[in-house]
Amino acid sequence: MKLDICQQFGIDFPLFAFSHCRDVVAAVTNAGGFGVLGATAYTPEQLDRELAWIDDHVNGKPYGADIIVPAKFEGKGEALAKGDLAARIPDGHKDFVANLLTEHGIEPEATPRLGGTMLSGDTGHELLDVAMSHPIKLIANALGVPPDYMIEAGRANGVPVAALVGAREHALKQAAAGVDLIVAQGTEAGGHCGEVSTLVLIPEVLEALEAIGSDIPVLAAGGIVKGRQMAAMVAMGAAGAWTGSVWLTTEEAETAPHTVQKFLAATSRDTVRSAGRTGKPSRQLVSDWTDAWLPNEKGQKPLPLPLQSMLSEPVLRRIDTLAEQGHEGAQKLATYFVGQGVGMMNKVKPARDVVLEFIEDYLAAAQRLGESIPD
Amino acid sequence: MKLDICQQFGIDFPLFAFSHCRDVVAAVTNAGGFGVLGATAYTPEQLDRELAWIDDHVNGKPYGADIIVPAKFEGKGEALAKGDLAARIPDGHKDFVANLLTEHGIEPEATPRLGGTMLSGDTGHELLDVAMSHPIKLIANALGVPPDYMIEAGRANGVPVAALVGAREHALKQAAAGVDLIVAQGTEAGGHCGEVSTLVLIPEVLEALEAIGSDIPVLAAGGIVKGRQMAAMVAMGAAGAWTGSVWLTTEEAETAPHTVQKFLAATSRDTVRSAGRTGKPSRQLVSDWTDAWLPNEKGQKPLPLPLQSMLSEPVLRRIDTLAEQGHEGAQKLATYFVGQGVGMMNKVKPARDVVLEFIEDYLAAAQRLGESIPD
Repeated sequence: MKLDICQQFGIDFPLFAFSHCRDVVAAVTNAGGFGVLGATAYTPEQLDRELAWIDDHVNGKPYGADIIVPAKFEGKGEALAKGDLAARIPDGHKDFVANLLTEHGIEPEATPRLGGTMLSGDTGHELLDVAMSHPIKLIANALGVPPDYMIEAGRANGVPVAALVGAREHALKQAAAGVDLIVAQGTEAGGHCGEVSTLVLIPEVLEALEAIGSDIPVLAAGGIVKGRQMAAMVAMGAAGAWTGSVWLTTEEAETAPHTVQKFLAATSRDTVRSAGRTGKPSRQLVSDWTDAWLPNEKGQKPLPLPLQSMLSEPVLRRIDTLAEQGHEGAQKLATYFVGQGVGMMNKVKPARDVVLEFIEDYLAAAQRLGESIPD
Repeated sequence: MKLDICQQFGIDFPLFAFSHCRDVVAAVTNAGGFGVLGATAYTPEQLDRELAWIDDHVNGKPYGADIIVPAKFEGKGEALAKGDLAARIPDGHKDFVANLLTEHGIEPEATPRLGGTMLSGDTGHELLDVAMSHPIKLIANALGVPPDYMIEAGRANGVPVAALVGAREHALKQAAAGVDLIVAQGTEAGGHCGEVSTLVLIPEVLEALEAIGSDIPVLAAGGIVKGRQMAAMVAMGAAGAWTGSVWLTTEEAETAPHTVQKFLAATSRDTVRSAGRTGKPSRQLVSDWTDAWLPNEKGQKPLPLPLQSMLSEPVLRRIDTLAEQGHEGAQKLATYFVGQGVGMMNKVKPARDVVLEFIEDYLAAAQRLGESIPD
């Protein structure tokens, strides 16, 4: 496409694909898009191995990495060990989860295991160093303003720094912090998201940046699973699209088969923005798990980030395993981060085909809009 | 624009403007768009007067009328008088409202007045007859599937029937019922709305209609206050845009001055989808009133439609009057239906200027998208 961002990033089509699967990242990059590896869950050693694999498979084509270093979380800046954080999880919440499992025919663990903080805050610096030792062309920070050391490392290595925002005000903060690329993500997005819809957020963010004389490119995110939606965003002034959910039902993705089946069957109304997984509102499939927490009318109030994910993640992994084995109660509880676009994810296909269909659909949309204009 | 819908409706630009103010309807129609009068609150006599005024001011140009006849509401089909419905409003809810007023320095009425059902269900047939006696070019039903008599009257008079939907499944029901135009409205819309965002809903609805071989035109609604957003929707395959909120801050609108000031100051995050006004989820400005009801964490559970509006509307009208007089408590409680686009409604302007700016912004968006395509 004839867009500045294609030149800037050395790509054919400004479709950015966030995925935890290296195969998806490589496939999108090889098809002319830009793959971004979600590295939150990795140790520095694992990240090194994954990026080396990508290097071996993209033949110098551009890709990026995404690390979450949130601006605010429970215990941040207090140098707390995991054990100290664990002590902040009330027994009432542990009992609540145990009861929920029992009601679904799952024996709760006598002493519930607690997960990690789900945040690379403690290893963020190391992950960044590892990422920078590979020829990445983008480093992204998914939650809050990137710490200074990330922006400095980006400058030093000539790697653009991207940040996700869900509100105009946050975009202005990110611009002031010096990020090179803003991903403005609407409420329909899977995972952590704000309240404002993509269709409203994109023109708002662009207008706000223009008002301060900033020309930082803005990628549109949230609900985008088709090329026509991406074209719509470019028509509004976005530089391209940032996508996540649509890759979860590709052949390359490591999504659990039971979850894939749930995705294929789900409509756009089968997701909910709930803090019941991580403590911060994130969009995921509706399930008996999400129903058990606010904002469901009679739901329990979740703990703050990262306590809620320490409590929930080990349980949800157990639930996933049981769901795969056909356990009915577990299948009712199983959930996964996904956006409202899931309603249009109805077939498993290779990631490369998704990119090619995006391009075709984008071109058709551009033609449609062009033809609406009088000569 | 070179779009089928422009030919079908005899308009230059497929921007449909829903407004309760006849002046807005006439101004939009005269500027080349299509004004639609929201007639829910009118008696048949009032509607006749308003439409006659419009007839006198649009010189034969096309406009429409909107009547709400919901498919389901409390007491429907039971031939209940207003008094019978009133008896279903629990004292607990009356007390709750009285306390809320007291907390805000407003003396509650000893015997709270109750409003009408807010629905033209009881006079829908008469309103329809009145509307059809004028040269309207569209009749819309904002809630649920239009009753057979509306669709038959449309056929008999050569007037297309439109219906609003917030989900793919509802669009299929409307198509089966025989409507001529579907307004697919995303969750970011002001007033009654579903959960799915406009960006996701439009391609979903179009895909579903295509799958059943239907070519009913679909207008995009929800959050649209700029021409670039409308262009985005046309790129995705929508026939045009249906708008409401953006007209509330026009010079012609009869929006109360205090409400206009709230709109101009509001950001896109200052709205909430709450059932606290009508009993059905509708988007409106956040205020102490909306905070008092679910889904706010500690909020009271609203009554079903139409009981909640019978309880709330007289109180909210009193609140509006006090707010205009500068009453601080009332100003904190005052709310009004509006979509997330309110964040970009920052200036009062003539309705005609809004239409012209829409066109200009639409053309710029089409050019932007066109230029992204390689030759």
